[in-house]
Amino acid sequence: MTVSSVSNETGCPTLSASLAERVGDRSTPTIGVFDSGFGGLTVLRALIARLPHAQFAFLGDTARLPYGSKSRRTIARYAAQSAQFLFREQGAEFLVIACNTASALALDAIQEAVPIPVLGVIEPGASAARAASKTGDVLVIATDATVQSHAYAAACRAQGLRALEKACPLLVPMVEEGWVDHPVTAQVIRIYLDELLTEAAAANLNPDVLVLGCTHYPLLRPLIEAAVPAGMKVIDSAEAAAETAVHLFNGRVAPTDNTGCPIHSTPSVEWVGDDTAGTTQVRCFATDSVEKFERLGSRFLARPTGKVELVDLGG
Amino acid sequence: MTVSSVSNETGCPTLSASLAERVGDRSTPTIGVFDSGFGGLTVLRALIARLPHAQFAFLGDTARLPYGSKSRRTIARYAAQSAQFLFREQGAEFLVIACNTASALALDAIQEAVPIPVLGVIEPGASAARAASKTGDVLVIATDATVQSHAYAAACRAQGLRALEKACPLLVPMVEEGWVDHPVTAQVIRIYLDELLTEAAAANLNPDVLVLGCTHYPLLRPLIEAAVPAGMKVIDSAEAAAETAVHLFNGRVAPTDNTGCPIHSTPSVEWVGDDTAGTTQVRCFATDSVEKFERLGSRFLARPTGKVELVDLGG
Repeated sequence: MTVSSVSNETGCPTLSASLAERVGDRSTPTIGVFDSGFGGLTVLRALIARLPHAQFAFLGDTARLPYGSKSRRTIARYAAQSAQFLFREQGAEFLVIACNTASALALDAIQEAVPIPVLGVIEPGASAARAASKTGDVLVIATDATVQSHAYAAACRAQGLRALEKACPLLVPMVEEGWVDHPVTAQVIRIYLDELLTEAAAANLNPDVLVLGCTHYPLLRPLIEAAVPAGMKVIDSAEAAAETAVHLFNGRVAPTDNTGCPIHSTPSVEWVGDDTAGTTQVRCFATDSVEKFERLGSRFLARPTGKVELVDLGG
Repeated sequence: MTVSSVSNETGCPTLSASLAERVGDRSTPTIGVFDSGFGGLTVLRALIARLPHAQFAFLGDTARLPYGSKSRRTIARYAAQSAQFLFREQGAEFLVIACNTASALALDAIQEAVPIPVLGVIEPGASAARAASKTGDVLVIATDATVQSHAYAAACRAQGLRALEKACPLLVPMVEEGWVDHPVTAQVIRIYLDELLTEAAAANLNPDVLVLGCTHYPLLRPLIEAAVPAGMKVIDSAEAAAETAVHLFNGRVAPTDNTGCPIHSTPSVEWVGDDTAGTTQVRCFATDSVEKFERLGSRFLARPTGKVELVDLGG
């Protein structure tokens, strides 16, 4: 497997020379994964499944969650501080922003804050929607802040898709309450989707894809799939982002990949992955209660988080 | 009307000499009111109704809300910073913590952070419950953090009451979604109350009072009153705290008031209140989006918030 360096004309991932060298030296680079809370652990889970021999440092900025109801300025400040922690303190050489809100509102600010490649979840989600849609019309459900940014609409437009976005602010608290298969949650999902489908019909859209634009929503996937019209595909941005990250590492991407980022294929170096088992190294950090992180986090990670370390970002 | 100085042996409010002097000089002291978000505006509303000629400075730490899901350490740090802003920057001489979570977990930290009297909402809520209950058994609904602190249980015990507390984490997001008279919200309230009443029966309690231990919940009062058993009284901590604040200002309190705080009746000085109308001065501050504060805040305040000023507490 190989790692490709990519240019950064549009804020897309660029693998640094030092990373290429380290990977070339067959040492294991650390992948930093960042979220405002626990939801991003669904992205980490997808990454671990694909890169079982990598080292991961995950930071949940739990003292300041949720980002989804906050302003662009505040989200950018918090996300930049978090990215700097992963780069400076944990030596991350590649950063995955496993948070739709931060990806939507703060990708530029994060990229400015750290001199390493940064991958968000929006572009991969839009790319996966393009691959799945036949009609070219897609629906996106996300947090307030993500929807207000219209980042998904813009990313979908860049892919030739028409997108209609809807904020579903009650779904995150329902997941965190543990009501992932509760009849009330099913009812709330139906209400949100009915409103969204009514709006889509009024706008003469014929959507055949629903994008889960929040890393909490994959835990509601069974309820959501039961609520969408027959034939509508459900796309998980967490899975899509992990797929894109692996493609970047593997150097399997085309000169222009499906995220719309220009990619150069040199230098091409080997990835350290091999078939020996059990070498995944994951360190988890949180800015608030590590007990709560350990308790809730295992739900998203689908395995124990291990010992979570408390960090103070000065907020 | 008179203002009483009160001692501070138990972290209870103490009116400073300078405040007594200013009030004696018939100048208008500023009352600082603090919440993690907008909910505390229900306390401000109750204060304005009772002290229409006072000056108020309200701070919502909206960049870091909600406090209800965070740890004691983090809440204490945030609340102390917020109290210092109201004292140092706004000249507050009396502070009302219009946030159950901060009152439950950070009253000591706030009192240490500022040299002015600080009144929380827990003790007044417990006192009002004692006044309303005939059986001596009460129920309390609140956020996760408030319940985990067991501050209401302790305050109720000090009043000779037995209290059973329950966290209702979905109610705040439902209020903020605007679903204050939505059938799904009514259903969620019934689920939470049924669970709580079942627990009460199992514990051989015979509750006749329900305390709303979160400043968001008064907006759900009609739905909550429709869901409680016949004869159960609903107590609003926001109203109770405003009542206590006014008593303290008015010097009408007995040497030991109904919050259990020892109170000295001297020096007794006049309050500036008179009958001229329209003199209430309210300045609102938020640590995040002032637009959102203005939009949502008016719902809690039941009148426009006026222009909200953005402040940076460094978080």
